[in-house]
Amino acid sequence: MAIDYQSLAVSGVQALSPYQPGKPIAELARELGLNPADIIKLASNENPLGPSPKAVQAAQKAMGELCLYPDGNGFNLKQALAKRFTVETSQLTLGNGSNDLLEVIARCFASADDEVIYSQYAFAVYPIVTQAIGARGVCVPAQHWGHDLNAMAEAITDRTKLIFVANPNNPTGTVHGAKALKAFMDKVPARVLVVLDEAYCEYMQGEDDADGLVLLPDYPNLIVCRTFSKAWGLAALRIGYSISSAAIANILNRVRQPFNVGSVSLAAATAVLGDEAYLNEARRVNSDGLAQLGAAFEAMGLSYIPSTANFIAVDVGEHAMDVYQALLAHGVIVRPVAGYGMPRHLRVSVGLAKENARFIEALSQTLVASGQGA
Amino acid sequence: MAIDYQSLAVSGVQALSPYQPGKPIAELARELGLNPADIIKLASNENPLGPSPKAVQAAQKAMGELCLYPDGNGFNLKQALAKRFTVETSQLTLGNGSNDLLEVIARCFASADDEVIYSQYAFAVYPIVTQAIGARGVCVPAQHWGHDLNAMAEAITDRTKLIFVANPNNPTGTVHGAKALKAFMDKVPARVLVVLDEAYCEYMQGEDDADGLVLLPDYPNLIVCRTFSKAWGLAALRIGYSISSAAIANILNRVRQPFNVGSVSLAAATAVLGDEAYLNEARRVNSDGLAQLGAAFEAMGLSYIPSTANFIAVDVGEHAMDVYQALLAHGVIVRPVAGYGMPRHLRVSVGLAKENARFIEALSQTLVASGQGA
Repeated sequence: MAIDYQSLAVSGVQALSPYQPGKPIAELARELGLNPADIIKLASNENPLGPSPKAVQAAQKAMGELCLYPDGNGFNLKQALAKRFTVETSQLTLGNGSNDLLEVIARCFASADDEVIYSQYAFAVYPIVTQAIGARGVCVPAQHWGHDLNAMAEAITDRTKLIFVANPNNPTGTVHGAKALKAFMDKVPARVLVVLDEAYCEYMQGEDDADGLVLLPDYPNLIVCRTFSKAWGLAALRIGYSISSAAIANILNRVRQPFNVGSVSLAAATAVLGDEAYLNEARRVNSDGLAQLGAAFEAMGLSYIPSTANFIAVDVGEHAMDVYQALLAHGVIVRPVAGYGMPRHLRVSVGLAKENARFIEALSQTLVASGQGA
Repeated sequence: MAIDYQSLAVSGVQALSPYQPGKPIAELARELGLNPADIIKLASNENPLGPSPKAVQAAQKAMGELCLYPDGNGFNLKQALAKRFTVETSQLTLGNGSNDLLEVIARCFASADDEVIYSQYAFAVYPIVTQAIGARGVCVPAQHWGHDLNAMAEAITDRTKLIFVANPNNPTGTVHGAKALKAFMDKVPARVLVVLDEAYCEYMQGEDDADGLVLLPDYPNLIVCRTFSKAWGLAALRIGYSISSAAIANILNRVRQPFNVGSVSLAAATAVLGDEAYLNEARRVNSDGLAQLGAAFEAMGLSYIPSTANFIAVDVGEHAMDVYQALLAHGVIVRPVAGYGMPRHLRVSVGLAKENARFIEALSQTLVASGQGA
């Protein structure tokens, strides 16, 4: 008798829909018979600058030791992070991207029937890691596309183990300031862990910008997650980190895979932390690009969600999937967000000025062709 | 009131002892004030040849795209693996090392109170991933240091979900032939999944060598796990793969992290699969090294477990930890295996001929100094 292997999977996994990544350039090129060089991808919130030369140089230097296992403790990278952020290395946990840490945290502290809180429109990985362990996800309705922190605090019950807060949030770009975040932390009991996902924090430029590290000494139930995949330009190499109390880091480090970050990744991340000029250029290009895209959307009469990150969610109307497909035919990949309950929006990552311009031109042509344009 | 965060962790995690990796060269150099170049590490079953030039070339070519997320579906690597092993790409799941797959499989198919079977002296990751999910590990006594497959089949109950079989096994180097493995599979009910860990299979050279891929068409409850970390020489880059029925691969691919393998890793692994000369040289050096080490142990009057892999467990007497420490002082890192319940053995990885000779000389001096030597 044939076995239905899906029925053998644990209950949370049986109904799991996996994360849908942005369409890779190579895949679109294969599908449409295009030259990959003619395609631009503004779909995965990647840094458009290309990698830091310091990171590339360090990565190349690591090539001689590809046969050897990585340093499972990430000694050099932890030293560099601890120095930059004035924390102890014992507070750090390294991950195979911050995705790895989000998952490890959930597996360490929540199990079947526990409750995990996150916001409507928040990053898709929170409900996925929650469901995979069979915990109960509590999705709190958003307010003006952003997290409703008061409502999230009110949603805490005796069974709540974790709260995910994305600041800025992906895919909406919404953000809470330092005071709002501190007020939220004051409402969360110490037995409930708050995972503050700051994957896009390097792009924030305002005066009241929240910084999880400032809160950390006063809130030992806080875990700050960050990544080298966005402003630091190393998405290909999969490196993220969390900063928490040493007690929590000790638990996370037991459960993460012993060699979860590769040697080339460790070397490149350590090197890029010393390239402040690269980070500043990434911020400048992003800030200019946000202004460029915002102005274009206004000129086209499109509403969009003001963003502090390296992407913008723009309302292109009820036929957003058609617009997405039309953009693909122009060789421009953006991200549909219907899966987030945002069927009228597309999320576009900020590219170089010429890439943004090409996207704007393609969007404009698409909307005119469909009779939606100005 | 201060919170005990360990008490907030899920029950399996609270008591978890993490995997203990081999001591890194850089760490020993820091501790003893030695020049890293003067240290040899025969502790992590790494390929002593250094990386394949084809792998390095492909890795370097991937450097231009460090800002971009990897292809989450690993299109090119899956094409190359499917071609090499005459399987469908839908049967493949890629992992951040095969460690990733061992963990994902456990999380997909076992939960609290389910039973997971493995052998005494088997690879440490099996009990670790079992405990992390709160499942009950059933450790079946070994026979002549190897898996007792009959006893493992007899240990199956209604609650058994998974069986881990390492072939060859680490750290003992023991192996079962094709007939024994087929006879074992015949005894396992189809509802119980067998994870056949073939991390070291490329080193096997006998006529009756088991090959999980031969069994796969007849046993859809079989999952074969392999790695690029050993004979293929890419431990630093963290890439493993599993081959299973498409139905099982579909489940694993939902639960693995969407970008669990980095771009440089994908490129290098795809390239090295085309370097048959490298693999053959790795096999030859290993075969010669096994003979060199075995002859030396016999000359020293030490008993050892005959190995088909790229390491040997040798009985150095009741003070094995002292011998290990003395070898460290000689700048030679091997692996104590007391944590495996083998307090008299040290596991030494096969190195280049000159590295093996240096280890033999250091071991000989150590045993003479302690009055154990010939």
